[in-house]
Amino acid sequence: MRQALDTIAPRPADRERQVTTVVDVARRAGVSAATVSRVLAGRNVVAAATRERVLEAVRALQFQPNAFAQGLRSGRGQAVALLVSDIEQTVYSALTKHVQAALEEIGLDLLLFNLGHRQDRLRGLLERATALRLRGIVIASNDVIPMRELKPLVSALQRQGVSILSIGQRLDRYGIPSVVHEETAAAARAAQYLLDTGRAPIAYLSRIRNSATGQERYRGYLAALKGAGIDVDPALVWDCSYRYAAGYEAMSRALDRRLAFRSLLAASDELALGAMAAALDRGLKVPDDVAIIGFGGIAWGEHVRPALTTLGADPKAIGEHVRDMFRNLLDGGDVPRQTVVKRPLLLRQSA
Amino acid sequence: MRQALDTIAPRPADRERQVTTVVDVARRAGVSAATVSRVLAGRNVVAAATRERVLEAVRALQFQPNAFAQGLRSGRGQAVALLVSDIEQTVYSALTKHVQAALEEIGLDLLLFNLGHRQDRLRGLLERATALRLRGIVIASNDVIPMRELKPLVSALQRQGVSILSIGQRLDRYGIPSVVHEETAAAARAAQYLLDTGRAPIAYLSRIRNSATGQERYRGYLAALKGAGIDVDPALVWDCSYRYAAGYEAMSRALDRRLAFRSLLAASDELALGAMAAALDRGLKVPDDVAIIGFGGIAWGEHVRPALTTLGADPKAIGEHVRDMFRNLLDGGDVPRQTVVKRPLLLRQSA
Repeated sequence: MRQALDTIAPRPADRERQVTTVVDVARRAGVSAATVSRVLAGRNVVAAATRERVLEAVRALQFQPNAFAQGLRSGRGQAVALLVSDIEQTVYSALTKHVQAALEEIGLDLLLFNLGHRQDRLRGLLERATALRLRGIVIASNDVIPMRELKPLVSALQRQGVSILSIGQRLDRYGIPSVVHEETAAAARAAQYLLDTGRAPIAYLSRIRNSATGQERYRGYLAALKGAGIDVDPALVWDCSYRYAAGYEAMSRALDRRLAFRSLLAASDELALGAMAAALDRGLKVPDDVAIIGFGGIAWGEHVRPALTTLGADPKAIGEHVRDMFRNLLDGGDVPRQTVVKRPLLLRQSA
Repeated sequence: MRQALDTIAPRPADRERQVTTVVDVARRAGVSAATVSRVLAGRNVVAAATRERVLEAVRALQFQPNAFAQGLRSGRGQAVALLVSDIEQTVYSALTKHVQAALEEIGLDLLLFNLGHRQDRLRGLLERATALRLRGIVIASNDVIPMRELKPLVSALQRQGVSILSIGQRLDRYGIPSVVHEETAAAARAAQYLLDTGRAPIAYLSRIRNSATGQERYRGYLAALKGAGIDVDPALVWDCSYRYAAGYEAMSRALDRRLAFRSLLAASDELALGAMAAALDRGLKVPDDVAIIGFGGIAWGEHVRPALTTLGADPKAIGEHVRDMFRNLLDGGDVPRQTVVKRPLLLRQSA
């Protein structure tokens, strides 16, 4: 059985391991990839002469239709498992909604698993994938994943024709095509906005060490400061968990210590809201005394007061990319190793 | 094949249609229900004499193990479908998290479907249940469901051994065991609190006509007013959709019209937050000028300012009830027709 993800567009260094795809067959037979798929699916809508040309190209190129598409025809389950860090966080529930709707358009159902930030659960679910007769697995987690450990398991699944994608975290260097929001560039843009509006020093609040996206966002903050010739003040970098209470505590502690800062970039809207509550509770004005920017573009951010300035998200676009990637894998086509979705800076009242 | 839901504890009027359960067999054989289950599952851990007594009782009572438990042994899928109105709403994502975790404890996976408030999707998913080899279906929807239309479909599935439960909405009169939060009593308690603290007239904001739970909550508001000898002012009952923007618009319109009210009971936290923003934007003080109570106990409610007073929820308790019900159905035991989970009134700053 072939590995579905072998059909990812190879990097130059991988050329010698290049694998024949439906597109190669189509080119040789002088037909469209869709026609090749129809022939391979055994559908009789293709003219006999065309059909013969396609089959000849298949033989000449020693092409094997990928296991993913074969599975579909052979009655494998129709379910894709979505593994999320924490479904209760709006970032993940919005993602779940849009991924489910998009996969449904191509006839795939969504099995949902909540990882609860536990790596043993991720491993356990990968181990169960075969028994669940999964068509694909989508990992939507910001946690640092021990990919070196999991790689043999992932490769074995891919060889069995289970397509594996990542959302939000770049795992393409482990052979997992990834659809991600821009993180470093977005954080840099927000920090730059605070610098441009005279809001330095800028404090930074995030889960950093244990969060892959947290690390990427932090790099954006560092880059913006460096670009402005400002040294990072370690006292203004607050590494914490990422929910409301952590934001409240971090801001309270900083104000107790009378640290000097005029703004805060928080790596989640929850952290930003918690931090804002702490500032307001001490009689500070937002944004006059401290400007605050969040991350995520969560719906309530527009309705709290002051309304939260934030780096938005586009879960609908991510869902559509995931759908298109599964459709391509199904057709034996290529999928990009990495797709980046833009984050808009949504300027409201808090900064 | 028997209908799994026949094993619900019968109402007195149903006595003549009472069905033999594992518990009846256990009583007659003088053993525990667990022992009966072990014998029926063909496990050899039971002493031969005990085993014989159980099988004798099975024959005497003409007991047939239910299709649900049979399905488990015969390799039917392990998935339960959860159908939610809108996964992006925190009420439903919190529920999803806890139901998934609880079902996993008994080895069941969760297939998630987002209904998007569409009745045709509910019907479509019920029609696909057999093809999906579902073990059970949990409907978590506040929308008014055309149960009379759907009843034949539901009954057919139940006869095939697919267990169907409802969360949040009472469907027990259609043979669907339901786990619900208290709604009418909770709304009445909140309205009573506003009356007791001198906050009349009380405006009421909710999706009412199209929402089953909305109707229940509205009855609580009516009951509290009636108890206080106050006539309902139709101008103070605002029937709308249930998201933030609808709350903002309803409050803005009421203030434009200079309606006289001193408080607002909103049937969701989203509506309450939107309405609060509209009041704050016009320079009103919450709770001094207008007190506001929401519904749902959503996490951000504690962190907005003023912090939102609300009727809380207990999604963990609901998940555990759902788990216990599936476990009982699996064992051929009884499940209650209706389980009510309490809502606490969480007093914060907004009322």
